[in-house]
Amino acid sequence: MDNRPIGVFDSGLGGLTAVQKLMETLPNEDIIYLGDTGRVPYGGRSRETIIKYARQDIAFLTSFDIKAIVIACGTVSTTALGEIEKDYDIPIVGVVRPAVERAVQVTKNKRIGLIGTVASINSGAYDKLILQRLPEAEIFSAACPLLVPLVENGRISRGDIMIETAVSEYLAPIKARKVDTLILGCTHYPLIGDVIGDYMGEGVTLVSPGAETAAYVEQLLKKNDISAEKGRRAAHRYFVTDSIEGFSNAASLFLNQDVRGEVSKVDLNSF
Amino acid sequence: MDNRPIGVFDSGLGGLTAVQKLMETLPNEDIIYLGDTGRVPYGGRSRETIIKYARQDIAFLTSFDIKAIVIACGTVSTTALGEIEKDYDIPIVGVVRPAVERAVQVTKNKRIGLIGTVASINSGAYDKLILQRLPEAEIFSAACPLLVPLVENGRISRGDIMIETAVSEYLAPIKARKVDTLILGCTHYPLIGDVIGDYMGEGVTLVSPGAETAAYVEQLLKKNDISAEKGRRAAHRYFVTDSIEGFSNAASLFLNQDVRGEVSKVDLNSF
Repeated sequence: MDNRPIGVFDSGLGGLTAVQKLMETLPNEDIIYLGDTGRVPYGGRSRETIIKYARQDIAFLTSFDIKAIVIACGTVSTTALGEIEKDYDIPIVGVVRPAVERAVQVTKNKRIGLIGTVASINSGAYDKLILQRLPEAEIFSAACPLLVPLVENGRISRGDIMIETAVSEYLAPIKARKVDTLILGCTHYPLIGDVIGDYMGEGVTLVSPGAETAAYVEQLLKKNDISAEKGRRAAHRYFVTDSIEGFSNAASLFLNQDVRGEVSKVDLNSF
Repeated sequence: MDNRPIGVFDSGLGGLTAVQKLMETLPNEDIIYLGDTGRVPYGGRSRETIIKYARQDIAFLTSFDIKAIVIACGTVSTTALGEIEKDYDIPIVGVVRPAVERAVQVTKNKRIGLIGTVASINSGAYDKLILQRLPEAEIFSAACPLLVPLVENGRISRGDIMIETAVSEYLAPIKARKVDTLILGCTHYPLIGDVIGDYMGEGVTLVSPGAETAAYVEQLLKKNDISAEKGRRAAHRYFVTDSIEGFSNAASLFLNQDVRGEVSKVDLNSF
């Protein structure tokens, strides 16, 4: 038993979709969340810069006595995790492995689609792991740079011409290859799951890394015997690098709950 | 006569539209450009964070022996300039005043439209200065948070359904108020000047702060007798906070010329 918190970070707000799943799956676990809202988004930045920012994010989280780190960010998970995980002595979980495990389980025709940020797609991290687990898989991927700003501006509804246009343009080449599984490789994308699902059609299973990661973390805690005490009331703290007010307002979109009063601002320059 | 360079900065790439105008207007002036591509965009961030980043940008530029600073960024000009300009002893020019001077000259019906980032519109900086210069003006403004990501993703052409939809949604309330002048309060917007012009119609004059700022800087240099020697060959250097390669590729969109080989990377954490 281990009541120390789990550290979770994301480039900004998208990771809260994973936090919501973590809270549902692990209601007794304390969570410390860092959203680097002062430098969001990471998805279009270079690998070098993403690794630098990720190291600062982790340095901040490990300034607390935490038992594990969850990278609730597709971009960092794909681009930086492989490079940096060896440098820390607590478990670090990204969203790639849990999503890949799920995708290779559910695909029947072994044709898997993948969407994400430019950095995530360029990293090749999903492709590499899928092919390790299922060497005969065929992977069809697309970088979707406009989906994050569209989601963050609330263009998430069925019938919205901008999100419908973006989704259909980005996904047309993937749909044409008749995939039966699509990995939503960015924590923003579950918010437009219905628009994506409508476009892809009923025969395609959508895999949300946030949800899969929550289940994966539950197993990890059990396996390492570091789960928190059952029935305890968990505490959740949020740290951001831009204004608290902006975060609190936007967080409700991603988390479906009010986080006011639990949010602090932090300067990562010293980490 | 003063051959020292002019320092120019922007949150990222948009400021290059102003740099292009500066180069045309002032072909003998050396320019040092800083694009904070590792933290772009600024337009959705809090005032406090924008001021902090602007001070770092200026600290970097003033580490060179420069004679003036041009803030080629609508967001910094509106949100931070008033707060910080008193702290430096060389002239600092933003894009607001030059654009306002032009707008109050060209408007006949004294109904002026204004578009910009969330931070720019919230600052009220344009409104305040317009009303100082033309107290009977009526100002109709709209924050357009999706225009920057759309432009940066190349959605700039007439007929592109995403940019056409965004432009018409953002501008409909302004057009309905029958403005005869529209200030494009963000350095990205001149790249979609034709889409905006089509939507607003022939009777509306578009004011591009970058172009007005170049003319304003020319006057400032003359007035202070700090213009560079005529006929000299000017040098242009570019600094960025994310990868050089990403900048060089994207810069051609904004600058219409190849900047490869003149770009360096800088870390602003120490400024």
